[in-house]
Amino acid sequence: MRPARLIYANPKQNSDLLYAAHFQAPDPVLFLEHQGKKTLFLSPLEIGRGKREASVDKVLPLPSGSKNIAEVIFVLLKERRIRSIEVPPNTSFALVEALKKKVKVTAGPFPFYPKRLIKTPKEVQALLKAQKVTFGAMRLAENILRQTRIKKGLLYWKGKILTSEILRFQISVFLLEQDYNPLEPIVACGAHSTDPHDIGSGPLRAYCPIIVDIFPRSRTTLFYGDATRTFCRGPAPAKLKKQYAAVKKAQEWALKNIRAGQNGKTIHAQVAKIMADEGFPKGFIHGTGHGLGLDLHEEPVRISGVDHLLKPGYVVTVEPGLYLEPLGGVRIEDVVTLTQTGAKVLGHYPKQLEIL
Amino acid sequence: MRPARLIYANPKQNSDLLYAAHFQAPDPVLFLEHQGKKTLFLSPLEIGRGKREASVDKVLPLPSGSKNIAEVIFVLLKERRIRSIEVPPNTSFALVEALKKKVKVTAGPFPFYPKRLIKTPKEVQALLKAQKVTFGAMRLAENILRQTRIKKGLLYWKGKILTSEILRFQISVFLLEQDYNPLEPIVACGAHSTDPHDIGSGPLRAYCPIIVDIFPRSRTTLFYGDATRTFCRGPAPAKLKKQYAAVKKAQEWALKNIRAGQNGKTIHAQVAKIMADEGFPKGFIHGTGHGLGLDLHEEPVRISGVDHLLKPGYVVTVEPGLYLEPLGGVRIEDVVTLTQTGAKVLGHYPKQLEIL
Repeated sequence: MRPARLIYANPKQNSDLLYAAHFQAPDPVLFLEHQGKKTLFLSPLEIGRGKREASVDKVLPLPSGSKNIAEVIFVLLKERRIRSIEVPPNTSFALVEALKKKVKVTAGPFPFYPKRLIKTPKEVQALLKAQKVTFGAMRLAENILRQTRIKKGLLYWKGKILTSEILRFQISVFLLEQDYNPLEPIVACGAHSTDPHDIGSGPLRAYCPIIVDIFPRSRTTLFYGDATRTFCRGPAPAKLKKQYAAVKKAQEWALKNIRAGQNGKTIHAQVAKIMADEGFPKGFIHGTGHGLGLDLHEEPVRISGVDHLLKPGYVVTVEPGLYLEPLGGVRIEDVVTLTQTGAKVLGHYPKQLEIL
Repeated sequence: MRPARLIYANPKQNSDLLYAAHFQAPDPVLFLEHQGKKTLFLSPLEIGRGKREASVDKVLPLPSGSKNIAEVIFVLLKERRIRSIEVPPNTSFALVEALKKKVKVTAGPFPFYPKRLIKTPKEVQALLKAQKVTFGAMRLAENILRQTRIKKGLLYWKGKILTSEILRFQISVFLLEQDYNPLEPIVACGAHSTDPHDIGSGPLRAYCPIIVDIFPRSRTTLFYGDATRTFCRGPAPAKLKKQYAAVKKAQEWALKNIRAGQNGKTIHAQVAKIMADEGFPKGFIHGTGHGLGLDLHEEPVRISGVDHLLKPGYVVTVEPGLYLEPLGGVRIEDVVTLTQTGAKVLGHYPKQLEIL
């Protein structure tokens, strides 16, 4: 018999639980899938909302009185004559060691519901919507950059020096208005842009790259959007233009050639080769992309040097970049859904470096 | 010899790692504390930023080539002749089982750095700042409610029906301006307010309770604020006034009487008793408070029926509530820092139900 499947986790930190129960809570909850039925066990505080919101077969009260979650789980399993459970491999080992005293515990796959990587048409629609909102925010950011005046190399907007912080704030407000959680959009200029995880700070400048990377999460569907464009206010130096052209060529090649059935490693190597052939053998310091869904980075967590067979229904980012001192970084990112014959780009946004 | 301490986690999901290394990243990183020295191992993508930002003794590159984190850890431990490690009890059990093949692994305390519960004066300042910003947002929310006109029981603001969503948006924009992550402030009216974790939706109404619960996180210090007030636009029904008075009496008693050296259970029982004596034996469906710091809910995760000795330097919320159908809920929440002789409330905001 197949073991029962159990998750004890905070749904905010466990997208498998979100996927399986479609329920959000600020504290850990207990989920059990047994003989094809899903049950969510909730505290008195959560149970009313759970019954209204969760997509499970049953919502039951979490037995109280016992202070220890392992003891609570033993009671629930005993009632159901369950002696063997499968849990996510990232389950707390202290909990698993306690459970192993009375039941057989094995590690399930990661993700625990691998099916969530294969997006249904409805899920693709939610991701497309998120991507359109993301591009809406990108349009706003580009428009603000376009409205700036250049004085002594700095950008002035509405009479004040435009900073990463101000542009990030404007993007965030736009996303909140659309009922998206903005997280922390990257607006990184010059030296900041050479570090892909530097979110950027201080004045934005003309004649150098400004990376804008926006990855909001829908508060209704819980799916993420993710897009990056690189802009230069005013004429770009020739070297930057060349760097941009190499990234764009590699990115567009990947959008045309990535498909299900491929090894991610192959695509990544080819993307790197295209940029090397364009004169940039160094500076591509991250993977070509990552899975996107209920997690911002989900399997394949990296389309990179690691073997990973791409499957039909995957939604992944395609985002090569080149990071070069002292000029700065360039990254261009779109999101695609994969089929056996190719990739469909979600949404559309132009790729143009200079804002003149 | 004391075992080395190892954390492999996403700093966004592990406040012990944030506390120990003061480094943020969107993916898991490896942290080792050995012979009093802290080392952070980072991928090529993170290492530059790690060297600038992390508060550790050394930042080293994470050895690559191996695809498996357990293998990477074995190499690092072997180089340092470490045979015994302590890890957080919530470490992935799949990782721990792999590590146990070559090293001794024991579960450390939870939190892994219990010292982080005992706030230093500098940390209390950061929490006070967060609480002041939270009250600033509360002031904005109250002012908007005050500016509304009542028509047929609905609230109109700037000519439109005021909703939970609009007020939440206004609060969120204010918090973003202060460089705080707003998360999802609760603005819950009437039936929504009877469920403490319902964030609220739809039109706000007059003559019934509106719970506003704001818990933003500073983007610089990473500490949280947390405050709740309950308002009623227009004259409140007599029953609601009585309910509010009971919660206020219990909350103010707790603020005066909570201190280090007490059992949280005692305070919680007394808070419940005060409300019962005021005519509300039912409806107090959550704990009296929780620890606050780098986590929104940290130890003591509940000041409730569970034994928990309160310690000097703890920062906790004090937030009794009464949730009664069909009228709605009332909650009043402040944050205090505990000493042996009493509690100091962080910041100040009036407690007045009616906005007339």
